[in-house]
Amino acid sequence: MNAEIISIGTELLLGHILNTNAAYLSHKLAELGIDLYYQTSVGDNTKRLEECIRRSAGRSDIVIMTGGLGPTVDDITVEALSRIGGEKTVLNRTVLKDLRSYFALKKLKIPPGSMRQAYIPRGARWVRNKVGTAPGLMIGCRDALLIALPGPPRELIPMFEGSVIPFLKKKFGVKSIILTRTVKTTGLAESQVNHKVRDLLMLGPKVTVGIYARLGEVDLKITAKEKDAVSARRAISRVERIVRRRLGGFVFGCDEDTLEGADAKILTGKRVMIAVAESCTGGLVSHRLTNVSGSSRFFLMGAISYSNSAKANILGVREESLKAHGAVSGQVAREMASGVRRLASADIGVGITGIAGPTGGTRKKPVGLVYVAFASDRTKIVREFRFKGSREEIKYQTSQVALNLIRRNA
Amino acid sequence: MNAEIISIGTELLLGHILNTNAAYLSHKLAELGIDLYYQTSVGDNTKRLEECIRRSAGRSDIVIMTGGLGPTVDDITVEALSRIGGEKTVLNRTVLKDLRSYFALKKLKIPPGSMRQAYIPRGARWVRNKVGTAPGLMIGCRDALLIALPGPPRELIPMFEGSVIPFLKKKFGVKSIILTRTVKTTGLAESQVNHKVRDLLMLGPKVTVGIYARLGEVDLKITAKEKDAVSARRAISRVERIVRRRLGGFVFGCDEDTLEGADAKILTGKRVMIAVAESCTGGLVSHRLTNVSGSSRFFLMGAISYSNSAKANILGVREESLKAHGAVSGQVAREMASGVRRLASADIGVGITGIAGPTGGTRKKPVGLVYVAFASDRTKIVREFRFKGSREEIKYQTSQVALNLIRRNA
Repeated sequence: MNAEIISIGTELLLGHILNTNAAYLSHKLAELGIDLYYQTSVGDNTKRLEECIRRSAGRSDIVIMTGGLGPTVDDITVEALSRIGGEKTVLNRTVLKDLRSYFALKKLKIPPGSMRQAYIPRGARWVRNKVGTAPGLMIGCRDALLIALPGPPRELIPMFEGSVIPFLKKKFGVKSIILTRTVKTTGLAESQVNHKVRDLLMLGPKVTVGIYARLGEVDLKITAKEKDAVSARRAISRVERIVRRRLGGFVFGCDEDTLEGADAKILTGKRVMIAVAESCTGGLVSHRLTNVSGSSRFFLMGAISYSNSAKANILGVREESLKAHGAVSGQVAREMASGVRRLASADIGVGITGIAGPTGGTRKKPVGLVYVAFASDRTKIVREFRFKGSREEIKYQTSQVALNLIRRNA
Repeated sequence: MNAEIISIGTELLLGHILNTNAAYLSHKLAELGIDLYYQTSVGDNTKRLEECIRRSAGRSDIVIMTGGLGPTVDDITVEALSRIGGEKTVLNRTVLKDLRSYFALKKLKIPPGSMRQAYIPRGARWVRNKVGTAPGLMIGCRDALLIALPGPPRELIPMFEGSVIPFLKKKFGVKSIILTRTVKTTGLAESQVNHKVRDLLMLGPKVTVGIYARLGEVDLKITAKEKDAVSARRAISRVERIVRRRLGGFVFGCDEDTLEGADAKILTGKRVMIAVAESCTGGLVSHRLTNVSGSSRFFLMGAISYSNSAKANILGVREESLKAHGAVSGQVAREMASGVRRLASADIGVGITGIAGPTGGTRKKPVGLVYVAFASDRTKIVREFRFKGSREEIKYQTSQVALNLIRRNA
């Protein structure tokens, strides 16, 4: 069973939009265990589109097309399909009814162009579009199944998941299914993670493990190909247990989990309140913590003390410390942490100071030098880091280590 | 003159990554006035890749390939090109030298796999890679020019812009050029912008104007197709002047400009210092302002006063105001603005309070209700907004209006 995708639209060929539909459909087909060999993008040109469809129908079992189903003259997919199949388009009364109620709801008459959307090639199945006006189509052509869906993702996705996937499962039977779980770590470099799990990278063919490094984070993607979801999940969990045992506290979550979400869970669970004093991160740590819904249950306040006077007057950092060690120092980070903790009457205080660059670095204190401190009743920690990258990358990496310090010590 | 793009890599067919390279190259080719008819993605499979390249070489003048040039056995592009061209790969001493110095800099020996990268098909031009180890290749095949570039964008982009574009310009001459300028506005809805410029949307064919709405921002894209860059720039400027006259102060910049960057320019120019008190935005406004390099010249401090006690004790918001109007009120926003201004001895204070949701809303004060206040020596402003969307979308829209309030009143 193999498939391919044809994305239709001149805007793709002009580079005006990213082809997120192709990535989405590819991912879903992989989950269904259907092999995908080609993705093609082609413009709103009848000749080239027809050529593409004919070639695809000759070499693949399933051809999924997106785009070109709209109401304007640029929209040529239905015309191409009708010509390839040798079937005239005919008015479909159910589609027309849908179209009528769509515009009635908006208190509008059906525009002349939109009437075209009710005509579909004779013998084609159609797929209801609950969001927009263009119905999807499914037509047999030689030995291939051609599926045409509208381009806007908010129309495409519900139609694919609600109608096409169930149809494919029924028609072709699903012999295997591919599931993936991403285990997320922070605090180790890619090479260190690699070293700890390198034997797992050779598993396969049914379960595979891949390492993906991102800024301040290394992810392990565990993928299993099995006959059903239960077996796939079981296979993944088996490997996940090994991964978690090897990587221990460096793992902060799975799939959609975030580091700030992990902090939130711990802080809320322990009923402790936090306050954050930021210099070089400029509010990013507070922003990330308050992205978590319900953050008022654990976040008391943030202080972005950019200037020395703000550090001294508001957080109570001592003038001597600023003079003796400089604003970017472990001592000042420590005093910022305890200062903001005291100021907000919080259980935990975090202090962050550093040089985000691109200017402001010196030989002794280069751009990327960062100190992060953690202060609670029983724990006082300060850590030094040296990051590389742009200003925003240094801010982000610093926020990662600060959030991780909270996760591991709260 | 027409071109096509072949993206090589199984990770594309699995939907693991978005094909940003195809969008980038398409955009650049359009700027060069080179028509692009097809984008194809194909996996790391020799037979299918060769078929794709042969077909493309038969129908297009230029074929740009990305990916498959790495050091592992999965990387098959060079092998395919050598077979198609009927030319053996030979060791290129200059590429080898580059490879040696790349690894010498990292104090490493050349790994065996990487040695492969110094072998290129006889007669091929190579393109230097200053970032990574894989050189690019340019080879004639029938009447087509085949260009192979590495997949990682940070390698691909400098190679394409530094070497390939100049080569294409010289080889093919550039008959027409397409340039785009994006004029960015905030403070008006898409329909309001549309109303003000709707006659310009009918211009064309040589200059076109498009409207693109984003969260808290409406962009106007002016595109000109002309015989050279000077005429294109002139045509764009002509329309840009009209757009700016119609939209006045709602325009905050062009192309790469950001709203926080516009604020930074104004604050630095006027030599005024700012302090920000945030509640529902949780640090996002401070984070955005401090993303601007050199922000210490205008940013004094931020206070994220999530709790009522932080608002009262640190910013000096009056208990009566909190009681009488509630924490989410114009009065509290106003007192936060003047409070943080006084606390930091700043010229300008900004106060932000609201309900980011998804919980915490009431019938009288629903999720999305936001107050933003501005306080300087001569100006006191408070504004009410009602936003829709997720927690992060409400935070972002609030940061937009706060940054815009600074821009228009500083």
